[in-house]
Amino acid sequence: MSIEDFLGELPLVDHHVHGALRDDVGRDALERMLTESDRPIPAGTTQFDSQIGFAVLRWCAPVLGLEPHASPEDYVRRRTELGTAEVNRRLLAASGTGHYLLETGYRGDDILGPAEMAAAANARVDEIVRLEAVAEELAASQVSAREFVRRYPEVLAERTADAVGLKSIVAYRYGFDFEPHRPDGSEVEVAAGKWLRTTEEAGTSRLDDPVLLRFLLWSGIDRGLPLQLHTGYGDPDLRLNRCDPLLLADWLELVEPSGVDVLLLHCYPYHRHAGYLAQVYPHVYFDVGLGINYTGVRSAALIAESLELAPFAKILFSSDAWGPAELHHLGALLWRRGMARVLGTWVADGDWAATDAIRVAGMIGGGNARRVYRLPGGEGAAR
Amino acid sequence: MSIEDFLGELPLVDHHVHGALRDDVGRDALERMLTESDRPIPAGTTQFDSQIGFAVLRWCAPVLGLEPHASPEDYVRRRTELGTAEVNRRLLAASGTGHYLLETGYRGDDILGPAEMAAAANARVDEIVRLEAVAEELAASQVSAREFVRRYPEVLAERTADAVGLKSIVAYRYGFDFEPHRPDGSEVEVAAGKWLRTTEEAGTSRLDDPVLLRFLLWSGIDRGLPLQLHTGYGDPDLRLNRCDPLLLADWLELVEPSGVDVLLLHCYPYHRHAGYLAQVYPHVYFDVGLGINYTGVRSAALIAESLELAPFAKILFSSDAWGPAELHHLGALLWRRGMARVLGTWVADGDWAATDAIRVAGMIGGGNARRVYRLPGGEGAAR
Amino acid sequence: MSIEDFLGELPLVDHHVHGALRDDVGRDALERMLTESDRPIPAGTTQFDSQIGFAVLRWCAPVLGLEPHASPEDYVRRRTELGTAEVNRRLLAASGTGHYLLETGYRGDDILGPAEMAAAANARVDEIVRLEAVAEELAASQVSAREFVRRYPEVLAERTADAVGLKSIVAYRYGFDFEPHRPDGSEVEVAAGKWLRTTEEAGTSRLDDPVLLRFLLWSGIDRGLPLQLHTGYGDPDLRLNRCDPLLLADWLELVEPSGVDVLLLHCYPYHRHAGYLAQVYPHVYFDVGLGINYTGVRSAALIAESLELAPFAKILFSSDAWGPAELHHLGALLWRRGMARVLGTWVADGDWAATDAIRVAGMIGGGNARRVYRLPGGEGAAR
Repeated sequence: MSIEDFLGELPLVDHHVHGALRDDVGRDALERMLTESDRPIPAGTTQFDSQIGFAVLRWCAPVLGLEPHASPEDYVRRRTELGTAEVNRRLLAASGTGHYLLETGYRGDDILGPAEMAAAANARVDEIVRLEAVAEELAASQVSAREFVRRYPEVLAERTADAVGLKSIVAYRYGFDFEPHRPDGSEVEVAAGKWLRTTEEAGTSRLDDPVLLRFLLWSGIDRGLPLQLHTGYGDPDLRLNRCDPLLLADWLELVEPSGVDVLLLHCYPYHRHAGYLAQVYPHVYFDVGLGINYTGVRSAALIAESLELAPFAKILFSSDAWGPAELHHLGALLWRRGMARVLGTWVADGDWAATDAIRVAGMIGGGNARRVYRLPGGEGAAR
Repeated sequence: MSIEDFLGELPLVDHHVHGALRDDVGRDALERMLTESDRPIPAGTTQFDSQIGFAVLRWCAPVLGLEPHASPEDYVRRRTELGTAEVNRRLLAASGTGHYLLETGYRGDDILGPAEMAAAANARVDEIVRLEAVAEELAASQVSAREFVRRYPEVLAERTADAVGLKSIVAYRYGFDFEPHRPDGSEVEVAAGKWLRTTEEAGTSRLDDPVLLRFLLWSGIDRGLPLQLHTGYGDPDLRLNRCDPLLLADWLELVEPSGVDVLLLHCYPYHRHAGYLAQVYPHVYFDVGLGINYTGVRSAALIAESLELAPFAKILFSSDAWGPAELHHLGALLWRRGMARVLGTWVADGDWAATDAIRVAGMIGGGNARRVYRLPGGEGAAR
Repeated sequence: MSIEDFLGELPLVDHHVHGALRDDVGRDALERMLTESDRPIPAGTTQFDSQIGFAVLRWCAPVLGLEPHASPEDYVRRRTELGTAEVNRRLLAASGTGHYLLETGYRGDDILGPAEMAAAANARVDEIVRLEAVAEELAASQVSAREFVRRYPEVLAERTADAVGLKSIVAYRYGFDFEPHRPDGSEVEVAAGKWLRTTEEAGTSRLDDPVLLRFLLWSGIDRGLPLQLHTGYGDPDLRLNRCDPLLLADWLELVEPSGVDVLLLHCYPYHRHAGYLAQVYPHVYFDVGLGINYTGVRSAALIAESLELAPFAKILFSSDAWGPAELHHLGALLWRRGMARVLGTWVADGDWAATDAIRVAGMIGGGNARRVYRLPGGEGAAR
């Protein structure tokens, strides 16, 4: 079997992804979901003129029954004609993803929940729970600071009874240059009191206090599930230079004795740094999702760069798709295509054995996720 | 029409460039203008043994009537034989650049001014004015601190009456880790007083006070013209790690409401960071000029890396040439050659449509600059 | 002669390398020497599933008489069967390295010393002395603080009487964000007193005081030999973001007047930063050893990235091998293979002349090292 054929048929485990869109969208709304910018599309430009825009028109158009390289107008017209439910069904099915680990903590009302995703994609879905979302829900329930500190671990345990992993967005809310140690209880209680007063007064519940963010992280470590961290590239709510995973080294060393695995998500443009951490720390893993979608045809180069220092057992596949099912589809398609190109070249040049290429593709496409998250079929991946 | 043919004939807008040499130069002087180092060429080495040196001998030699890969000796001899005026004429004409946006603030006596460049290149020339140069000229006119603060915006307005853009070298004079807010008037006046005394005593006028540099930047924003910022790679007068454009994020957000476009120049090795900023902020643009020249045959890889996150409407072409017309010529030639190779591969592999490749080449080669700087022919670039 | 043939036969100068293993090793010990991690190999994974692991099985297996892409089991069995002395002999001979500059300061009991390496490899060996090792040996001899300060330069002179260069691991012991100036004598004496007391009490002699590390560096500069600096990638004893060579700029400028050459080792993932420094500072050189071994088939991309800004006279070859002779062999083989691929493509595309490619390969493979370290045959490398 060729590496291309193997990759074409491999049922993927998408270890970090969000739900597909619930409602129909027009062109402007669609364009705004094809960028990490939270600003309006600049006048006189279109987000279709980008790597991800070109990839949508090239690869998703045929799934909707259009020619490759359709015009944006034709594409949006066809999308509307089919309706979001049918668009979801087609693009999710064509992605060949067999198992989604769905992170449910961001704008959940706009997108499909776990059961709906499972139905729309005809695939298995497990849940990843966002630490900050659980804290913000708890804060909305009128708890005192002391109760917040006491109850958060309990609520987290309840909320994650059936989850397979946790996620933190400390990168967005503060950055990775946080004090790495576990904060003590009184420190946390003071910070919680301040935050709860602020949220009550302001009518908002955005948690961005660094002491509380650390409390959440360490509570997550105590919970014992694999912990995902948003890393690198994201919307301008973050400061990219403070999301370099190298800043996490001290914290990673403190976490190491717990035995909890840490999964660095996305990582662009710091994916080589993530590969370094994945080599030197036994509990560190990473993926280059998000970047694969957004760099379109350049994703093959990104994939190649991700295959340098990290042992192959430490690299995972994700799409980080949120919303338009184009993102779920492209995440899988561009990964398959990029892996086939990169690994295929190495085999053709005689550097890699074909059987090894197939084995590594299977590890990154699903085997590693099954092992780390203890999913069905996750035993015995090593040779 | 093939993408190669299209690129070969495209009249470029070089949106950041300086004048060509005025006088003849010998081998040592020429070598020292083919590096960003301001030090003598190390004994036992030659700057011709570098990517840019090899590119000169490969691509400029034929324009001067020599074989490709001429020896440095033959090349310098032929250059001297022809004389700088003829060398300029040949290399500028062969570059196929139709419109230069000429930055006039650096060692203007050694190079051609706007009218001379227009004549030598038989091309249109508009001016970009350097904020720091205007301030240093004003300081030399014996103003008081109070007058400096009051008059700088007026003098800038006069000096830029016919200019199409501004330029700042805060990267050289301080770094991008400056306090981002607009400084208040009294703070500026104190800083100006101190600087004017120092310049008088020292007989120099180099402006490197961070408060004054911020005052210039914000005065530039008030002027309302597109603002270019030296970013990344340059001579050792700067500290490269303090020229990472990600350090500008807070300042960019403060500038955003003004509606002024910010153009990050060069950016190597932080061009992926620049691409990120260009995606998430509507008013941010960038180029990979300078790096294209200095990396020679590797410029195709650099161009490919610049085509990742940024929407294609946010990327521009420049040479950043200063002095030897080899730099003006190579900036254009290596960009055309690199774009043809990169985009041509994507078309051949079926990832991009040929018509899109041609359209994107036209946007980056000139269309985007015409839109941002409101040059003739700059309307309606979006599809 | 083709560039491939030339590279295949070029006797290399490996300007930074350690001794080959003295004793036989089993599979677990071998795997742990094929990673920069100092942790056990994570359960359920093997370091053979990595770029370096695949490279060993692909390229070293045939040297030991196995088929390419041997299984780890077969490879380890065959290695044990042959014994380490024969494995060393075969792999070192096949590397085609003619001259090793051997750094002797790390775990010297486990590996071959200079004379043993010369015998095992049938090659010339010169020594590079580690500044920190000399200081730690001196501390173990019961000196007072004052004696330490006075005697260190003397001991260093004695210890390096026949050495060709020095090495510092300040990157590991502190980071490059150290205060760049030469510390004054009383400051050094106070720091020495504190350190000597600590080492006596703790029974260890690890030197990590920043004042003393600077004292060593400046004593090294005074010694006048070329000075190697560990840069970038290494084991988790360092903080990678504090090993970015751009942090050295102020110190490099202070060192510049001394005329001492500084060689930045490894540099991954900051090799583009090193290339910048090598262009702008006359006394700065770099290599991408270590990274070449660890990125396996991706080393061609790494080599290409190292050939951007730096003049070709400023780039060197090293393997940074320590221990398993697989690392000595792969360092040379992957460099030859990567250079042949990269330079061969440039020649085939008409960008470089074949004679230039051969000349540059000779410079990086040995000529530059001979010039910098004043080795036999080191004169007249420039054209």
